[in-house]
Amino acid sequence: MRNLLLCSLLSIPAWGVAQTSSENLVPYVKPIIGTQRMGHTYPGATVPFGMVQLSPDTDTIPYEMNGKYNGDVYKYCAGYQYEDKTIVGFSHTHFSGTGHSDLGDFLIMPTVGELKLNPGTANEPRSGFRSAYSHNNEVAEAGYYKVKLDDYNILAELTATNRVGFHQYTFPQSDQSHIVLDLMSGIYNYEDKNVWTFLRVENDTLVTGYRQTNGWGRTRTVYFAMTFSKPFYQYGNKNFSKRQVYQGFWRKFDQTKNFPEMAGKQLRAYFDFKTTAGEKIKIKFALSSVSTEGALLNLRTEAPGWDFDQVKQQAQQAWNKELSKITIQSKNKDDKENFYTSMYHAFLTPITYMDVDGSYRGLDQNIHKTKDFTNYTIFSLWDTYRALHPFFNLVQPSRNADMIKSMLAHYDQSAQHMLPVWSHYANENWCMIGYHSVSLIADAVIKGNAPFDANKALDACVTTARHGTYDGLSYYMNMGYVPEDKNGSSVSKTLEYAYDDWSIAQMAKKLGRMDIYDEFSKRAQNFKNVYDASIGYMRPRLSDGSFRAAFDVLSTHNQGFIEGNAWNYSLYVPHEPEQLIGMMGGKKRFVAHLDSLFTMHLPDKYFAETEDITRDGIIGNYVHGNEPSHHVPYLYNWTDQPWKTQERVRMILKKQFKPTPDGLGGNDDCGQMSAWYIFTALGFYPVAPGSDQYAIGSPAVDGATLQLENGKTFVIEAQNQSEKNVYVQKMVLNGQPLNRLYLTHGDITSGGKLVFVMGEKPKKK
Amino acid sequence: MRNLLLCSLLSIPAWGVAQTSSENLVPYVKPIIGTQRMGHTYPGATVPFGMVQLSPDTDTIPYEMNGKYNGDVYKYCAGYQYEDKTIVGFSHTHFSGTGHSDLGDFLIMPTVGELKLNPGTANEPRSGFRSAYSHNNEVAEAGYYKVKLDDYNILAELTATNRVGFHQYTFPQSDQSHIVLDLMSGIYNYEDKNVWTFLRVENDTLVTGYRQTNGWGRTRTVYFAMTFSKPFYQYGNKNFSKRQVYQGFWRKFDQTKNFPEMAGKQLRAYFDFKTTAGEKIKIKFALSSVSTEGALLNLRTEAPGWDFDQVKQQAQQAWNKELSKITIQSKNKDDKENFYTSMYHAFLTPITYMDVDGSYRGLDQNIHKTKDFTNYTIFSLWDTYRALHPFFNLVQPSRNADMIKSMLAHYDQSAQHMLPVWSHYANENWCMIGYHSVSLIADAVIKGNAPFDANKALDACVTTARHGTYDGLSYYMNMGYVPEDKNGSSVSKTLEYAYDDWSIAQMAKKLGRMDIYDEFSKRAQNFKNVYDASIGYMRPRLSDGSFRAAFDVLSTHNQGFIEGNAWNYSLYVPHEPEQLIGMMGGKKRFVAHLDSLFTMHLPDKYFAETEDITRDGIIGNYVHGNEPSHHVPYLYNWTDQPWKTQERVRMILKKQFKPTPDGLGGNDDCGQMSAWYIFTALGFYPVAPGSDQYAIGSPAVDGATLQLENGKTFVIEAQNQSEKNVYVQKMVLNGQPLNRLYLTHGDITSGGKLVFVMGEKPKKK
Repeated sequence: MRNLLLCSLLSIPAWGVAQTSSENLVPYVKPIIGTQRMGHTYPGATVPFGMVQLSPDTDTIPYEMNGKYNGDVYKYCAGYQYEDKTIVGFSHTHFSGTGHSDLGDFLIMPTVGELKLNPGTANEPRSGFRSAYSHNNEVAEAGYYKVKLDDYNILAELTATNRVGFHQYTFPQSDQSHIVLDLMSGIYNYEDKNVWTFLRVENDTLVTGYRQTNGWGRTRTVYFAMTFSKPFYQYGNKNFSKRQVYQGFWRKFDQTKNFPEMAGKQLRAYFDFKTTAGEKIKIKFALSSVSTEGALLNLRTEAPGWDFDQVKQQAQQAWNKELSKITIQSKNKDDKENFYTSMYHAFLTPITYMDVDGSYRGLDQNIHKTKDFTNYTIFSLWDTYRALHPFFNLVQPSRNADMIKSMLAHYDQSAQHMLPVWSHYANENWCMIGYHSVSLIADAVIKGNAPFDANKALDACVTTARHGTYDGLSYYMNMGYVPEDKNGSSVSKTLEYAYDDWSIAQMAKKLGRMDIYDEFSKRAQNFKNVYDASIGYMRPRLSDGSFRAAFDVLSTHNQGFIEGNAWNYSLYVPHEPEQLIGMMGGKKRFVAHLDSLFTMHLPDKYFAETEDITRDGIIGNYVHGNEPSHHVPYLYNWTDQPWKTQERVRMILKKQFKPTPDGLGGNDDCGQMSAWYIFTALGFYPVAPGSDQYAIGSPAVDGATLQLENGKTFVIEAQNQSEKNVYVQKMVLNGQPLNRLYLTHGDITSGGKLVFVMGEKPKKK
Repeated sequence: MRNLLLCSLLSIPAWGVAQTSSENLVPYVKPIIGTQRMGHTYPGATVPFGMVQLSPDTDTIPYEMNGKYNGDVYKYCAGYQYEDKTIVGFSHTHFSGTGHSDLGDFLIMPTVGELKLNPGTANEPRSGFRSAYSHNNEVAEAGYYKVKLDDYNILAELTATNRVGFHQYTFPQSDQSHIVLDLMSGIYNYEDKNVWTFLRVENDTLVTGYRQTNGWGRTRTVYFAMTFSKPFYQYGNKNFSKRQVYQGFWRKFDQTKNFPEMAGKQLRAYFDFKTTAGEKIKIKFALSSVSTEGALLNLRTEAPGWDFDQVKQQAQQAWNKELSKITIQSKNKDDKENFYTSMYHAFLTPITYMDVDGSYRGLDQNIHKTKDFTNYTIFSLWDTYRALHPFFNLVQPSRNADMIKSMLAHYDQSAQHMLPVWSHYANENWCMIGYHSVSLIADAVIKGNAPFDANKALDACVTTARHGTYDGLSYYMNMGYVPEDKNGSSVSKTLEYAYDDWSIAQMAKKLGRMDIYDEFSKRAQNFKNVYDASIGYMRPRLSDGSFRAAFDVLSTHNQGFIEGNAWNYSLYVPHEPEQLIGMMGGKKRFVAHLDSLFTMHLPDKYFAETEDITRDGIIGNYVHGNEPSHHVPYLYNWTDQPWKTQERVRMILKKQFKPTPDGLGGNDDCGQMSAWYIFTALGFYPVAPGSDQYAIGSPAVDGATLQLENGKTFVIEAQNQSEKNVYVQKMVLNGQPLNRLYLTHGDITSGGKLVFVMGEKPKKK
């Protein structure tokens, strides 16, 4: 009763009528969520899909020490770990939630007192320019970050526009106030990662330059233009390179002090000021992939003034606009924080990757210019094809179409003639498996969100999917599976290729390209070829046709799978759940398999080999902290026990998402985890992108309003919803009973209202 | 008599009437001159002022071995040494005549048989892909080079357009024919010089990429597009980097074979063919400073077809056009070869440095676009301000003005706000001393060849000349000289700054900027401050005002001078010879000083410390192989014995220039030595650029016709000239006796005829 009363008090708008929320949603966003342990999110300032992610780095330990991989570096994928006691500085580029890393460009640190040009270590913080800080003095909001740097009594504040990081440092009185610009620092750094850095002091308030690295992005350059609100009275730099072979007549100059052109592989620069107590020094730091000229254009266009508060306000308005695309009703503040922070995390990546004039550096390292779309980068596709891009097709369709246009431009520029696999900053890094670009494109085409040449896009998909030299594909095409003795992670690859192929087939069918439909429909059945009926699991198969003998269904490593064991991956046939269920012995046995997945005890030895997640990221043997099972809890819908989906997803929401620094059990993976949260909290999920159907789950909100780009509104009302009332009793769509376990994309985009009536007991009929 | 008869048989055209020579002058050009020992010229193919210098490299030894400078590298400033027995390959960029080096980008080598991907060594040539060759099978012409590669029975032919190197390789029958593209190779290379290289196989006949280096040019990138006349059937590469830290998911591919995207610091690629006997494989290789897209544009614009002979013919026509700007009459084939080869060498540098659309990479590493001038690079200004650019003001005024515009663009892009000192490929390398850009600009302004904003140019000169942190300039400005205890080579710097200041003053006077005229006229007198009257020599002075005690007038090193000892450098007051003579004790004592310079015996120990020249590059103690004394033989004109100038210059011409590989006694220095030859052979020389006067010498030709850009013709007739008849008896300009020891620039540019009547005895009156 109490719940119903509360529900009725909430002003849920009439469905089908566009409205704008006047609620300020920014306070529900807690960027600090996921910054502890495995979430790999960053707490700093950025705008939606912004090119700049200006955020504190709490350590900059190297990827490699003494020639060996340094496992600790993994903690710093986003530069920040909540437990750390010191901040090294504030850098301008960060991945959100990745499990490998790069970036961390252009670290800035304000200091006072004796000039230090090395960062120092966490154990001996006073040995360098890093500073102690306290979470008590730290504020992380969408578009704004603040922290007190205890060692220097400097208040650091950060905000951003799309391409410009805006710093505001409030100094104490000092004749020795410094801004350090560290061109050596970076995330997943190692000795030779800096290929070249270049810096020009154009005048006493303007500095330009670039950093070129060889890391996860093999050939990567980021340009900058940096301007100060107050002229520095002197400046200098130190070159930390071990070798500088040819100096020649450069020796004419003292290049370390007040010399305006610096270049090398290991540079740190500093700029000196005299400050009065409470004096603010502001810095605007613009990025470009094109040139320092491009960075300067971005700087002058996006951030012409010096009003920090105004820029902060604009950033938060931009966030509010994006967050308002879904407003929810919930009695639970934690749920609201989880929800809007998920929205926030989902709207970080991919990032804008072009100058204000449309110029950007392409995969071929040439400068391209786009007139009719925003070019994006950072495509963590193995993760994000599952739920993030389907989510974008729903609430960010224009951006999603532009992301696909960006991927098609990548294809046009690719020497390999392939769509992106995992790409960032004009680089393909080939990370993970599959060719899931095709899933994104198919999903957009199927859902009618394809303002691009769909036939050309299909050709790109087909060319990519026929690329014989790619990752076992020639075996797959010839034999119907990837043989483990020829190419590792063979089962995962076979299963994902088969799904991808199905998505190509769906797109081809819609476009009337039946030859392609036939070819890829056939390939889509290849999942059967790695199923060992004798044990009831997917299992690595060898090139002689036999299944690999040595095999442990609980183990992940080196036996045909990646980021998931056979128990989980055997369920990876999102496009043909009925066939999967039949193959695995029918609904009853399948439910038993699913049940055991969630309830069994996974011995610790198997956890040790599960990547990227905390112990909490596993429920039984179900690994939520990694992606391959994200659709799995929804598979009960294809059995006789769909209520178990409702039960499981609510349990997962509760266990895996908390509004705390350690609230994420695994990497957010550029928003995939967050998109899973959002869909699931709303009560439905895209099990097979490329289909127009969403499987019904159990809404964890009391209500929600989706403001669609087409002007329509889709309202969800979850009557009687509570922590206990997780079971759907009834669904009513636009006043008519909904007697199916899925919504179609059209159901939503037509606008309307879906009422869930919830109860505490499963409706088993 | 015989001479006179021959003279009259020559058809010297009527003066003042423009005419075009129909004579083919290309056969007189011997690019092989200077390729042995110290000339540092290259024999390969290029067009006048062309961006591509496609030439054989006979070794690619490193600048540094085991962390120490490798003196032998000096021989390979232009990549080629005549004595060498093997050719490593053909690379696309070469300096002509420098004494330090860089470039050698993109070495290509055709081979057959077993694939070798290392160059091998001179001692064990068969250990690598280099090949033996013979000078008997070698042809080096202006715009064309041919050699037989003995190890492979391949005939290699090279020609070029401005921005495209054109290779034609005639192969034997082989199933294993290879083209090696070496991205590691370079001139003055060392282990870390390659900052990054990048290569894309776009299709089976097109490859693009770039090479980025850190050498003499600290931050330098050259892009290319390479196309083959025949598709390769397979390709691959080897990465020779000692360390490649992060490979990640690139391991999906076998990147060594048929993988189209290569990147790293140490790469060599190969392309495989099957050839029939006598089959030609042609390669067009375009350069750009902008991008691979720019290189492709250059390729398609300049060299659309595959007709090698046609491109060769166009290259030689372009040479003939430039060479024809001065046609000479001479009885002596050697003299003609020396003369036209000097013309050839003078027209190599500076090189074009922009794409066909006017785009180029500037000093700020941004892309700039010029609409109204050709942008040039490679400014070896300490050398070339003396005679090369004055020569250009005479016969290449449009190009010289464009070169100055290029220098002004450099100034606009300079973080130091300075005109170039020694610049190449969007880099200032600061080589040598002085700020001689101002001399070029003044010379152009004074001679009326200034189609640019002369006042703005003067401002750039003044800003440059007041740049206190540059090379002792603040001392110079405060104290009137550079003190040796504060800044080395102090006497040379003081003297050259004083001359440069005089040139600024002349320009300021012409522009009516009398405050600047006064300031710099005063500075121009600073040469007096380093003259030690007690010994009669310029001498290093310390900051306490005293002259340095330890001092040897014959020694060059570490006592105030660079590339010249006190004996030579004491004569470096080109702008005030009268004052110099007075200061040094009057004409009689001055003549004695000059005489002793040419006739004294220089002990070997002093030769050992003389840089950049052969033993023959010194005449007595007069060092012709270096630049500081180039004006010296003309100084007799300011004494009572001008006939000694006539005698000395003829002697120098004879001793220092021979039409043989070892025909140059010192570095050609980007054409300065050649320009000295041309002026001197014509009978006059610009002692002080910035003055409109040329000092009269002794013509070594029988006649010459200068075709001027303004349509006028200036004819020189040297009656009775012979090896013995070196003394001018009489001069007649346009029918009137010429009773002065100089010509003005206007005398020449007005068109007309100058008759020298020569004799075997000095005319001492």
